[in-house]
Amino acid sequence: MTIPTDPETGEFRRSANHFDARITADGRDGWPVEAGRYRLVVSRACPWASRGLVVRRLLGLESALSVAVADPIQDDKSWRFTLDPGGRDPVLGIKYLAEAYHAADPHYLDGISVPAIVDIPSGRLVTNDYPRITLDLSTEWTSLHRSGAPELYPERLRDEIDAVNAGVYADVNAAVYQAGFATRQSAYEDAYHRLFTMLDVLSERLERQRYLVGDTITEADIRLFTTLVRFDPVYHGHFKCNRNKLAEMPVLWAYARDLFQTPGFGDTVDFDHIKRHYYAVHEQVNPTRIVPLGPELSGWTTPHHREQLGGRPFGDGTPPGPPPEDERIEAKDGATS
Amino acid sequence: MTIPTDPETGEFRRSANHFDARITADGRDGWPVEAGRYRLVVSRACPWASRGLVVRRLLGLESALSVAVADPIQDDKSWRFTLDPGGRDPVLGIKYLAEAYHAADPHYLDGISVPAIVDIPSGRLVTNDYPRITLDLSTEWTSLHRSGAPELYPERLRDEIDAVNAGVYADVNAAVYQAGFATRQSAYEDAYHRLFTMLDVLSERLERQRYLVGDTITEADIRLFTTLVRFDPVYHGHFKCNRNKLAEMPVLWAYARDLFQTPGFGDTVDFDHIKRHYYAVHEQVNPTRIVPLGPELSGWTTPHHREQLGGRPFGDGTPPGPPPEDERIEAKDGATS
Repeated sequence: MTIPTDPETGEFRRSANHFDARITADGRDGWPVEAGRYRLVVSRACPWASRGLVVRRLLGLESALSVAVADPIQDDKSWRFTLDPGGRDPVLGIKYLAEAYHAADPHYLDGISVPAIVDIPSGRLVTNDYPRITLDLSTEWTSLHRSGAPELYPERLRDEIDAVNAGVYADVNAAVYQAGFATRQSAYEDAYHRLFTMLDVLSERLERQRYLVGDTITEADIRLFTTLVRFDPVYHGHFKCNRNKLAEMPVLWAYARDLFQTPGFGDTVDFDHIKRHYYAVHEQVNPTRIVPLGPELSGWTTPHHREQLGGRPFGDGTPPGPPPEDERIEAKDGATS
Repeated sequence: MTIPTDPETGEFRRSANHFDARITADGRDGWPVEAGRYRLVVSRACPWASRGLVVRRLLGLESALSVAVADPIQDDKSWRFTLDPGGRDPVLGIKYLAEAYHAADPHYLDGISVPAIVDIPSGRLVTNDYPRITLDLSTEWTSLHRSGAPELYPERLRDEIDAVNAGVYADVNAAVYQAGFATRQSAYEDAYHRLFTMLDVLSERLERQRYLVGDTITEADIRLFTTLVRFDPVYHGHFKCNRNKLAEMPVLWAYARDLFQTPGFGDTVDFDHIKRHYYAVHEQVNPTRIVPLGPELSGWTTPHHREQLGGRPFGDGTPPGPPPEDERIEAKDGATS
């Protein structure tokens, strides 16, 4: 995997999304919401894709939108289905996610990323627009939500959620990559300072309120969670985000455990995929490709006491049931609930 | 710097010491103890050399045995005196430590290591035998010890000290390097397991006794300390010794802080040299050579409460005074006492 950095500043640059069609209730882009029509392709290693896994679970979209889980370790043709029998996704029938990209655009030459939603009948990629995907699952797929599904992007809170998300994106979600992929000391230090300044701000915000916006779980919590859950296993060491561990930031650590222990969050997390992906794929950062045995993860299931802050995790809704049988993650480390 | 690993097993191999003459009270190897005659060459980054710095301070040998501090970042000719005016050690007049090695043996081709003791009049290396150097400072240099110097290697405790040292060497001092320099997963995992098993054993031993052997500071504590003080800044992330941080092991963390705050220990520690050395020199492990800004070090000076366990740090002796003016380490991070 080539990590694109600016030759002048040593800053990491994320490539823009190319496929941004939207799957909507009215099908105005040609892609109407329809149960069983689309397949969500993810890596459980990837924080951007994992947002989709959490939202899908919370909204009860598991049977309406099936999921393909890529091998956490890409090869030179990128994400592949080597975890499946015969190395092919059993629904799409392809070996590489790139095949769906090329079915949509034979001339496409840029990066292959997850999450990706593929139209099953045609085998074509519809969208890899990760910030849009989760919002559309919340707002366009409503006819397929389970009963009791929470409102993750409620109209009245959108401005505040968007504002929080913008800060979390720049200084948390993206900053950890900018720190880890920096090739110059100054680029690294800039990202590190932005990251920990923002984590301190978020700690203060969460000290007296259970969730980031309002008193229920929203899209904002999901976007922060998928970075926090990777913090100690990969970002702290591999990406040098090491002022301290998440486990040393009491408010954020309790907040992250609270979410982890909420149905729909921790049950999507595969620490084995997470660690093997980052340490094995980024040879520019970890040339030996050795995967650390730590950290000890049993703390994730310890009491967090955040319920004392009140809040109604699912608002007027209810928690989701357990994950489908074939999506359960083996607890290799005692932390997966 | 080339890291020697076994091509079969991926295990790190430390090269044997080559120069093992001893400086003794009776001068039987041709090198009698003599005030002002020798120069101790160290890197403050190096745990093996730092043992000598601690022992020299505790025994009050600063004026009898002067010290040369190498740049923490070696170049292809190894340790160098680029921190000194003109890039030369002001006493030995050499730019590279290798010059003293070659003055002793013009045909020497192996590694150049610290600690090294050099005979000032001839400019020749006398010894780089690090395990022997500290023991000889304790037992052969007694005529030059300050009054009140502690007994760091008392006759009656030698068997026990030697036994503890053997375990600490294999499973702590050396194991962190074996974990960090491993080129195969199995070699890394073996070192990791030995390391944390031993740290758990040591935690248990130190839970009810203040020091490793007897009730006073001995050579055994010094050898453990120089690894522990590097644990969170380098071994935890850079060497993947990440089951947990030292700061997450309550007994060992309090023990290490107790020693750090004891005159002669923390005042020899330069976290800046430590971090820059490991992260900049081991390109096989950290190809970007970026030096992490963390961890937060202010915890080193917090109360440790170990005095409640009793013990007499210096036995019948006394603590050393402050370090010589020209050996004080700038507190860049608030942790150096």
